[in-house]
Amino acid sequence: MMLDDKIIGVVAGVGPFAGADLLHKIARQTLATKDQDHLTVASLSSPSQIADRTEYLLGQAELNPAYAIVEQLTQLEKMGASVAGIACNTAHAAQIFNVILDRLRALSSKIKLVHMIEEVARHLCEYHPQTRRLGTLCTTGTYRSRIYPNALEPRGFTVLLPNPILQEQVIHPAIYDAHYGIKACGGATEAARTALLEGVEHLRKKGAEAIVLGCAEISVAIGAKDVDDVPVIDPTVVMARALIREASPEKLKPLISEVNLPPRKAGRCAGKNADD
Amino acid sequence: MMLDDKIIGVVAGVGPFAGADLLHKIARQTLATKDQDHLTVASLSSPSQIADRTEYLLGQAELNPAYAIVEQLTQLEKMGASVAGIACNTAHAAQIFNVILDRLRALSSKIKLVHMIEEVARHLCEYHPQTRRLGTLCTTGTYRSRIYPNALEPRGFTVLLPNPILQEQVIHPAIYDAHYGIKACGGATEAARTALLEGVEHLRKKGAEAIVLGCAEISVAIGAKDVDDVPVIDPTVVMARALIREASPEKLKPLISEVNLPPRKAGRCAGKNADD
Repeated sequence: MMLDDKIIGVVAGVGPFAGADLLHKIARQTLATKDQDHLTVASLSSPSQIADRTEYLLGQAELNPAYAIVEQLTQLEKMGASVAGIACNTAHAAQIFNVILDRLRALSSKIKLVHMIEEVARHLCEYHPQTRRLGTLCTTGTYRSRIYPNALEPRGFTVLLPNPILQEQVIHPAIYDAHYGIKACGGATEAARTALLEGVEHLRKKGAEAIVLGCAEISVAIGAKDVDDVPVIDPTVVMARALIREASPEKLKPLISEVNLPPRKAGRCAGKNADD
Repeated sequence: MMLDDKIIGVVAGVGPFAGADLLHKIARQTLATKDQDHLTVASLSSPSQIADRTEYLLGQAELNPAYAIVEQLTQLEKMGASVAGIACNTAHAAQIFNVILDRLRALSSKIKLVHMIEEVARHLCEYHPQTRRLGTLCTTGTYRSRIYPNALEPRGFTVLLPNPILQEQVIHPAIYDAHYGIKACGGATEAARTALLEGVEHLRKKGAEAIVLGCAEISVAIGAKDVDDVPVIDPTVVMARALIREASPEKLKPLISEVNLPPRKAGRCAGKNADD
C-alpha cells in the first residue's frame, strides 16, 4: 500500500454474507501478488442495529435504517476510512440513501460514499455500451422503490423486472425465506438457486440482453457461470472496483469477462475483458 | 443481538482472503434466520503494515509482525471489540503470539484474544476424541516453528507433517507462489488444489486419521468435500466458533459434520455433527 492510498470502509452487516462477499471481491479485484500489496479495509458488521431495508420501504418498519448506517459510517471514518460502501442494493433507495447523505453532511463527515447503483450505471456505459435491455433481480424493496429503473432509464437503458407475482412469490423468498432463503441459510440453497435461475429465464424471455444481480445476497448465490451467453452484472463486484478506484486506482485489476460462453464458443472471447 | 453480547474483532489482513473467509464462517456458524440475528463484528484488514509471518520466522524479515498486529487489535478494541481473533495460523507461532500477548498486557488491553491452535486442540478433544494421528498442512513458517506439534502432542495427539521436500516444493508454493499460489491468485487455482490434495494423500499414506488445514489460505482452497472418509479440520471454522462462543454462546450453531462420506455411506451419518 502506498502512503497516499485511502482507507476503504465497508458497512458489512446488510447482510453479513453480502459484507464478507464484498470484502472478498475487493481483494479479488486488487492487483496483488502478496498480502502486503492489498489495500487497507475497515469493516463493521452490526446488523442488529439496522432495520431491514425492504421492511422500511414497504412501511413495515418505522425507523429509517439510514440513521444506524450513518452511525456505522461515522465509526468507520474514525478508523481512518475516507471512502466507503454499503454492501446492500436496497439501502440505495432514495428514501434511505438521501437521508444518509443529508445526515453525513450535517455531521460534517468527510467520507466519500460510493453509490452502488450509480456505479452500475457507469459500469454499463463503460463496458456494455451496446446493451439496452437489462433484466434485474432484486428484493421487493428495491423492486417497488424502482431503484434500478430510476438510475438507468435516464441513461437510455430499459430495465426489465419480473412480473409482480414472480417477484413476490419466487424472487424475494429466495433471499428472505426463513427455511431456504439466502439470508437464513447463509448461502445458496438449491431452492434459492432454482428460484433465481427461474427469474433469469423469465427475464431472458422478456428480452433481457444482460442480467443485473440487484441484491448483494443474489450475487452470493448465482453468477456469470450459471448463465450462458449474456453478461451477468454483479453490483458487488462493481462496488468493489469503485472502492479500489477511489482508494488507489493503480491497484485496480482489469475487468474479468462478465459473460459465460459455452465451451464451443469460449475461444472467441479469450482474453477479452468485456463482452461488447 | 442481545445487549450483553460482546463485539468480535478480526485482524483480517493476514491475508485478506483468509480474513474475508473468517467473516463468512462467523456468519455461517451463527444461529440466525435474518440479518438482525447476527453478531457485531469489526474487522480491519491492513496487510501492508504486517510483515509476512513465515518470512519473519525464517529470519528473512527483521520486524516481528506482532507489533503491527497489536496496533490493529488496539484499533479494534477502540471500535468496541472485547474478543478477537487473528485469521492466520502462522501468527500463532510462540515467537509472534507471545509477543502479541506481552504487548497487549503492557498496554493494559482488555481484549480477549482467541488462540487458534489451542482452539483446534480443544475442538479435537471435544469432537474427535478417538482420533490420534493428525496430518497437518501448513506454511513453512508454521511447519518449522512446529506450532501444531507443540500444541497437540502434549495432549496425546501425534502430528504428521509432510516430508521437508514436499513441504517446501509443493505445499508452501501452493500458498505463496506468485503465479499459482492462493495468496497471489485470490483463491484456489487448479495447480494449488492439486498440490494440496497431493499433500493430503501423502499424509493419509503416513497414517493420518484426520487432516488439519493448518493455514487459513489452505482452507479457502480445499475442504471436507475434497477428502473422502476422514475428517477435515478447518481451523478457520474452529476460530469462528470460538469467537461466537466467547461473544454469545447461545448463538453458536451445532457443528456440521467435518467428514465427507462417499454417497454409498452418506445415510449412515445423516444428522450427526461429528464423526466419532
